[in-house]
Amino acid sequence: MRLISYQSETGPRTAVARGDGYVDLHQADPLLPTQMKQLLPMLAVHHESILEAAQTGKLLDPAKLHLLPPVVEPQKILCIGLNYADHAAETGATVGDEPVVFNKFPTCLRAHRQAIEIPAVSDQIDYEAELVVVIGRAGRNIPQAEAMSHVAGYTIGHDVSCRDWQKGKPGKQWLLGKSFDSFAPLGPEIVTADEIEDPHNLRIQCRLNGETMQDSSTSQLIFRIDFLISYLSQVCTLKPGDLIYTGTPPGVGMARKPPVFLKPGDICEIEIEKLGILSNPVIAGC
Amino acid sequence: MRLISYQSETGPRTAVARGDGYVDLHQADPLLPTQMKQLLPMLAVHHESILEAAQTGKLLDPAKLHLLPPVVEPQKILCIGLNYADHAAETGATVGDEPVVFNKFPTCLRAHRQAIEIPAVSDQIDYEAELVVVIGRAGRNIPQAEAMSHVAGYTIGHDVSCRDWQKGKPGKQWLLGKSFDSFAPLGPEIVTADEIEDPHNLRIQCRLNGETMQDSSTSQLIFRIDFLISYLSQVCTLKPGDLIYTGTPPGVGMARKPPVFLKPGDICEIEIEKLGILSNPVIAGC
Repeated sequence: MRLISYQSETGPRTAVARGDGYVDLHQADPLLPTQMKQLLPMLAVHHESILEAAQTGKLLDPAKLHLLPPVVEPQKILCIGLNYADHAAETGATVGDEPVVFNKFPTCLRAHRQAIEIPAVSDQIDYEAELVVVIGRAGRNIPQAEAMSHVAGYTIGHDVSCRDWQKGKPGKQWLLGKSFDSFAPLGPEIVTADEIEDPHNLRIQCRLNGETMQDSSTSQLIFRIDFLISYLSQVCTLKPGDLIYTGTPPGVGMARKPPVFLKPGDICEIEIEKLGILSNPVIAGC
Repeated sequence: MRLISYQSETGPRTAVARGDGYVDLHQADPLLPTQMKQLLPMLAVHHESILEAAQTGKLLDPAKLHLLPPVVEPQKILCIGLNYADHAAETGATVGDEPVVFNKFPTCLRAHRQAIEIPAVSDQIDYEAELVVVIGRAGRNIPQAEAMSHVAGYTIGHDVSCRDWQKGKPGKQWLLGKSFDSFAPLGPEIVTADEIEDPHNLRIQCRLNGETMQDSSTSQLIFRIDFLISYLSQVCTLKPGDLIYTGTPPGVGMARKPPVFLKPGDICEIEIEKLGILSNPVIAGC
């Protein structure tokens, strides 16, 4: 199943895909929740009802469909740094036996086709294509062998990064450089886990104005999804709707000679096999 | 005014203090919101109604009062590192012209008297007493001269810190070491900004099992509240209920010889002048 969040007249709502269209789940079946964070832990329970809604429900008017990030207000956006061996090499970093973990704020999220805003304080804004894991079931201290049962599905994420703020601020904390408003485009759809046979074997690409800048496979992940879920849940309770941005492959702008940074007028497209395309224009922000 | 959140039979609710007791705001006046995040941006509008509720409303049964963190689910918990000159000195850090910024997850929050849990993976858990700023009005790129008008009030925060995870993980990111479940006790009350004439002149103390471990004043803050709000809002939109943990004074456990770390059975008390006392027992966690 492919799920979206969209803006209705009464607020965010959840819909399921049928072909190129979408059916509002609660409208099709009042027993289905209106909100993605309520739906995600109930996907197994509601499986048949969601399929039925997808097949028989009324399609939303595509001309009026206002997409939102598929999870509107996640509690946590966890991110993994340097998780592709080739990308670690291009940044000059060495890979340890534990991942680099940072995060982004929910104010970073943007929907498919919403703009990435270049902040006034920097001109070193870089792109990073990422596979995003969407947590379905809450847990703490999740054993690695059980970790995949906590995954509701997968989507596409863009970990936009302000390199001078990421690397040049006191204490060397990445948080601010990763957390400018609009720095986490997400979507367009969550593809449920039952449709992705092997999340560690998906082609992932980033195109900037049509030119391929990153082209790799999630088979290159150093720390894999089951490990990451188990590792992170040692620290904090993972909640339905929490997102894990799993890291980016080689080809980022700062590693190029000369470096390539985003500028107003650019179009970034991230494509992940079986998940679709996340496209975002770049504009001057404030 | 002094405000709390508490757990009612129907979920979190907001109450105002009268003496040692509390009055449910929405019960006293149905025009007042039930949730702190809705109330905070409306404090000026509702000022007279809240005072009226405090004076005439029915007191909640203290025997049944189940306190929550005063903001139950903030979108962001921003934290400032090394913001007291003496504390920076005791950790051997130099102070730049911008603050060290990190964050904690909402899963860290605990109420007054709820337990701090020592995680199984570390025995280097340290205390840090902090003044916490509660944002009332949303904003981005807030000029420093207008910053204080975005403050709803102040409360007491405990920035519990797992030192080996904070300092010893790949990439040197502090996030995980600061973000174990239960690592952000908060409260008991939000004291509204109109009651605090000068937030930069409040005595702040931390007591461990009755012994004073930290004793300083917010007059020692290197980066002051108006600067911090303006600085952080360059990056992200601040939202009602967002929290800024402003940093801790000298006397933390890791800087002592020999170091002092928290252990099950300890009681941590943080007292800030005009804001009250935040007390939390320490237990073994998972």
